[in-house]
Amino acid sequence: MAMEGYRGFLALLVSALLVGFLSVIFTLVWVLHYREGLGWDGTSLEFNWHPVLVVTGFVFIQGIAIIVYRLPWTWKCSKLLMKCIHAGLNAVAAILAIISLVAVFDFHNALNIPNMYSLHSWVGLTAVIFYMLQLLTGFLIFLLPWAPLSLRAFLMPIHVRSGVLIFGTVIATVLMGVTEKLIFALNNPAYSTLPPEGVFANVLGLLVVVFGALICWIVTTPKWKRPKEPNLTLLQPNGGTPGQVEGSLAVNFGKMDKSDSELNDETAARKRNVALDEAAQRSTM
Amino acid sequence: MAMEGYRGFLALLVSALLVGFLSVIFTLVWVLHYREGLGWDGTSLEFNWHPVLVVTGFVFIQGIAIIVYRLPWTWKCSKLLMKCIHAGLNAVAAILAIISLVAVFDFHNALNIPNMYSLHSWVGLTAVIFYMLQLLTGFLIFLLPWAPLSLRAFLMPIHVRSGVLIFGTVIATVLMGVTEKLIFALNNPAYSTLPPEGVFANVLGLLVVVFGALICWIVTTPKWKRPKEPNLTLLQPNGGTPGQVEGSLAVNFGKMDKSDSELNDETAARKRNVALDEAAQRSTM
Repeated sequence: MAMEGYRGFLALLVSALLVGFLSVIFTLVWVLHYREGLGWDGTSLEFNWHPVLVVTGFVFIQGIAIIVYRLPWTWKCSKLLMKCIHAGLNAVAAILAIISLVAVFDFHNALNIPNMYSLHSWVGLTAVIFYMLQLLTGFLIFLLPWAPLSLRAFLMPIHVRSGVLIFGTVIATVLMGVTEKLIFALNNPAYSTLPPEGVFANVLGLLVVVFGALICWIVTTPKWKRPKEPNLTLLQPNGGTPGQVEGSLAVNFGKMDKSDSELNDETAARKRNVALDEAAQRSTM
Repeated sequence: MAMEGYRGFLALLVSALLVGFLSVIFTLVWVLHYREGLGWDGTSLEFNWHPVLVVTGFVFIQGIAIIVYRLPWTWKCSKLLMKCIHAGLNAVAAILAIISLVAVFDFHNALNIPNMYSLHSWVGLTAVIFYMLQLLTGFLIFLLPWAPLSLRAFLMPIHVRSGVLIFGTVIATVLMGVTEKLIFALNNPAYSTLPPEGVFANVLGLLVVVFGALICWIVTTPKWKRPKEPNLTLLQPNGGTPGQVEGSLAVNFGKMDKSDSELNDETAARKRNVALDEAAQRSTM
C-alpha cells in the first residue's frame, strides 16, 4: 500500500531506530565500561540493571510500540495482529520496567538507602502506574472483543494522548535519572569538571531526547497513519471516509475538518454509525 | 461562538491556570522561604532568579501562549490580533528565559563554578536555541505578511509540532534542574531523608509535570480548535470547510480525513487553492 511522504517517513524511522539503538548501546557501555558492570547481588551491579532495562524497555521498546501501526509494511496485516504486536511490545516494556524497579529497590534496601525520596522516583513511579493502567485498559477495551463500541470510541483519543504523554514523562524521568546518577557517582573528578563519563552520559541523555522527539514526530504526522481496512471501504455507500474509531495524534493541517460543527447533524450521526459498524467489523476480525 | 465540549475545556483550562499559577507560587516560596531569597549580586540570591524566571516565563507564559488560540472568548478577535498575542507572550517568555540564563552564568562565574557541564544545561540551552529559532521563524513567516502562502502551508505543521516538543523539553529540563538543586543544596539533612524542602520541591516538580500535561491535552483536542474566520466561509461555493493553513496538533478521531489520499486529485488541488485564498485573506487582514 502506498504511503504519502514515504521517504520522509523512512528517514525519520531509520533515524529513530538508529538513535534508539544507540541509546541502548550507550547505556550498556556506560554501566559496563564506566561503571561496575551488571549483576544481581544488591550492589551497584544490580542497580546498573535499572538504566539498562529502562532505556531498553521503557524508552526503546515503548517508542517502537507507539509507532508500530504506522509501518507501511504492516498495513496488509490485520488490525487484530497489529493490536497484539502493539500490546505485546508494551507488555514487554512493562515487564522490563518492573524488573528495573525491583533492581533499584533491592539495591537501596541492601545499602540502606531510602526509597522514593527523589523527584525522579515520584515522577517515574507515577509514569509506571499510569503505564500499567494504560496497558490494562488497552487490553480490556481495545484487544478483548467485548467492550461496547461507544466506549471504545470515547476512550480511543484518551488512550492515544495518554500514551504519548506517558512516553514523554518517561523520557523526562530518564533525564532526571541520568542527572542524579552523574552527580552521585562522579566525585573525583567531579561531574562539574566534565570528565569523559560525564560527556558520555550527557550524550546518552541527548540521544534519549532525540529518540523521544522522533517518535513523537512520527506519531503526530497524519499522512503516515495506518489507513482503514480496504475491504470496509466497500461497505460505505457514499464512498467517503468516515470518522475512525482508531485515533491518532495528528496535526490537523490541510484537512477536511467538518465533524466538529456537524456533530449534531443527522449526517454526522449517520457517519458515526458507519464508523461504529466499521469498528465492530475490525474488532471481531 | 459556541464551543463543543465547553465544560470540559473550561475544567482543563481552569486546572491548567491553577496548577501553572501554583507552580510559580511554589517556586517563589522555595527561593524566598527555603532558600536565600532574591537579589542580583552574584550570590545564590542571583541564582534564585533562574528557577523563578524559568517557571514564570518558560513554563507558565509559554504554556498560555500555546493554548491562546483555543480560548473561545477570543474567537471573535481577528486572527492577526491573536497572532500578536501568541508572539508577544512567547517573546516575553523568551526574554525571561534569557535573563534566567544570565542569572545562572553570572552566579557560576562569580563563584568559579563551571558552566555548561550538566545534562540540564545541555538540554536547556538546546531548548532555548530552538525556542529562539521558532520565535524568529514564526515572526518572519507567520506574522509578517510577506511570506509566500505555500511556505506558510509547508511550515505550519512543523511550527506547531516543534512548539509542543520544545515545550515538553523545557518541562523535562525544569525537572532536571529541580533534581540538581535539591541534591546540591540539601546536605544537612540530606535530600535522601526527604526534609520539608525536599517534599516541597518534589511537589513543585509534579505541578510542572501536571501543567505540561494539561497544556498538551488542551492543544491536542481537535474540537477546541479556533474555527476558521466566519466571513471566509461565504467565499466557499460548496459550503465545505477547506483544509486550513493554520495547523494544530489534534487527535484525528471521528474526523473526515480525506485529504491524504486526495492530494493528487484535482478536487484536492482546488480545495487547497481555496485554503490558500483563505490564508491570504487572513494574513493581510
